[in-house]
Amino acid sequence: MRSIAVIMAGGSGERFWPLSRIQRPKQLLKLTHPDKSLLQEAVDRIEPLVGNENVFVITAPHLQAPIVGESILPSSNVWAEPMKRNTLGALAWVAAQLLAQDERDVVLAVLTADHKIADEEAFREAVQLALETAEETGALVTCGITPTRPETGYGYIEVDESEQTSKGALRSKGFREKPDFETAVKMVEAGRFLWNSGMFFYTLEGFLRELGTAHPEARQIIDEIAVGLKAGDEAAAEQAFAKLPNLSIDYALAEKAQTIYVVQAGFGWDDVGAWDALSRSMGIADDVGNVQLGNVLAVDTKNAVLYNESNLKLAVVGMEDVIAVATNDAILICPKDKAQRVKEIVEALKAEASPLL
Amino acid sequence: MRSIAVIMAGGSGERFWPLSRIQRPKQLLKLTHPDKSLLQEAVDRIEPLVGNENVFVITAPHLQAPIVGESILPSSNVWAEPMKRNTLGALAWVAAQLLAQDERDVVLAVLTADHKIADEEAFREAVQLALETAEETGALVTCGITPTRPETGYGYIEVDESEQTSKGALRSKGFREKPDFETAVKMVEAGRFLWNSGMFFYTLEGFLRELGTAHPEARQIIDEIAVGLKAGDEAAAEQAFAKLPNLSIDYALAEKAQTIYVVQAGFGWDDVGAWDALSRSMGIADDVGNVQLGNVLAVDTKNAVLYNESNLKLAVVGMEDVIAVATNDAILICPKDKAQRVKEIVEALKAEASPLL
Repeated sequence: MRSIAVIMAGGSGERFWPLSRIQRPKQLLKLTHPDKSLLQEAVDRIEPLVGNENVFVITAPHLQAPIVGESILPSSNVWAEPMKRNTLGALAWVAAQLLAQDERDVVLAVLTADHKIADEEAFREAVQLALETAEETGALVTCGITPTRPETGYGYIEVDESEQTSKGALRSKGFREKPDFETAVKMVEAGRFLWNSGMFFYTLEGFLRELGTAHPEARQIIDEIAVGLKAGDEAAAEQAFAKLPNLSIDYALAEKAQTIYVVQAGFGWDDVGAWDALSRSMGIADDVGNVQLGNVLAVDTKNAVLYNESNLKLAVVGMEDVIAVATNDAILICPKDKAQRVKEIVEALKAEASPLL
Repeated sequence: MRSIAVIMAGGSGERFWPLSRIQRPKQLLKLTHPDKSLLQEAVDRIEPLVGNENVFVITAPHLQAPIVGESILPSSNVWAEPMKRNTLGALAWVAAQLLAQDERDVVLAVLTADHKIADEEAFREAVQLALETAEETGALVTCGITPTRPETGYGYIEVDESEQTSKGALRSKGFREKPDFETAVKMVEAGRFLWNSGMFFYTLEGFLRELGTAHPEARQIIDEIAVGLKAGDEAAAEQAFAKLPNLSIDYALAEKAQTIYVVQAGFGWDDVGAWDALSRSMGIADDVGNVQLGNVLAVDTKNAVLYNESNLKLAVVGMEDVIAVATNDAILICPKDKAQRVKEIVEALKAEASPLL
């Protein structure tokens, strides 16, 4: 069975403003590697396992050109869903593309572009195991990360440790939303809760079958899209796609599936969600915990993210746990524990139709 | 007796970096008025009392051209001491200039350019009273501000409330260094402690007489400088000046004088010492305590000084009590209670011979 990797890269990544912009969202930024964007890292990471021709990106229409332009993948491997329909839309579009190409005998690894992965070899081993499990069982498979701290920023998967597949995958007992700290501590202590990596593995046949049960209407729409695509009738494909509900694949499918297998792994995994993540992910913090880039002068400053892409000198004195980012047209300052709130700046800029988006 | 005002404007004002530079120190910045530099404000404040021709500035050589260039005063009224010799040097140079011009029958108001004064009419009344007291008594006179809070950033003067001159000036019982908070609270409660405004008033004769007692060598040097100036022998004047010790007028003279009179006043006086002062002085803080200038977007940010002279958007979210300043070549970020430490940035820039000075 042909193995293909699909990297979801349609997000807007607004939390990295002012570096991230509509035309240059997070996945196209060089955040955790000096020379590679997050998406380039994701492509390079999976390519040795499935081969260059089997790596695809599913993204938003306005991002297709930049992705192809930066030679991350050839245009034939960069799919753009016609409009925003959440992750259900992205994976429905992928399924329809494969059906239209009569590529039915495939097993897919659906991956993300916004994670830093420390041990790439271990990552590929886990993906390989997950693909084999999906092929063997026909069920949905996900990857659960052994937690290393009581993280409140991730969802969790509870696994049944008593039941294993022949390959060693565990059975899911259900997904858990992001917990509060106390709950997170208990879950990490309990041991049977894993971080939800957001990756999915399935055969095309298995995906269509499960979706047929969980969301028959969406399942039907995929066929309509495929017919349009096969006939070269883009308008018909888009019209069908537009009927899809705006749902996450977790909600539309994963939480409703009878059987989900979980491959447990520990390859050093971190969400590159907002500026504060750089302190953890880049591994380039100095001995007082500062991540510094560009023309920066830091005096008595600790645990700060100081990211300066501008031509101005960024001078900081006596600050702790702060994020300061400068580009050639904007400066951002916020406390590290409020990194998520950069979204509010972006919202305010949208409200004033700012050119800084 | 001719009354003249001398504004001391030789300081480097480094604490307002990145706005302040060697060639544009604090006194030349528009910090507390939209259209006027601190020095221009100081000149305009005293001019109605003594007349335009009697306002002088004593400054450093490299600042003479900018001050004249900005039409603050004509060049004949801008004196530059040849080199740094602290405030003793500045006032010795002034005295020598007057002696060289045979202007002996004068009473001087020595003022500063780094204070915000709310009630200018009350200020001029106090200066008038201080000049009259100096002329009447021949002693050194200073101005003590009725404290409005237990400020630890100012020096204090203790006054003897039982003894008053005919004009109502009090007698000084001594100067006190900047106190700790507890001491400041006690002093404000005691009532007989006033803020040391740093202004001095004296007749030229009285100054020379008191200096002759407190520091005979400096007194002698003034004559040597005057002889050089009168002969048009600049080199001789500078050579004599160079021999002066590097002392403040407080240390060299005021703390040693037998009799100092204090005019008590309450005209709304604030030291514009560093960026944090803008919150108090400008009177332009908004209802959440922010002082904002330029292209600034502040979300959930309180009691901050956000001063943006650059073309970049300055966006701040979730910050409190912070100073953020941007010019076209530099950005400064520091906590408001560490505003004094901007000096450390300037020191570091000096060490690397930065062009940003």
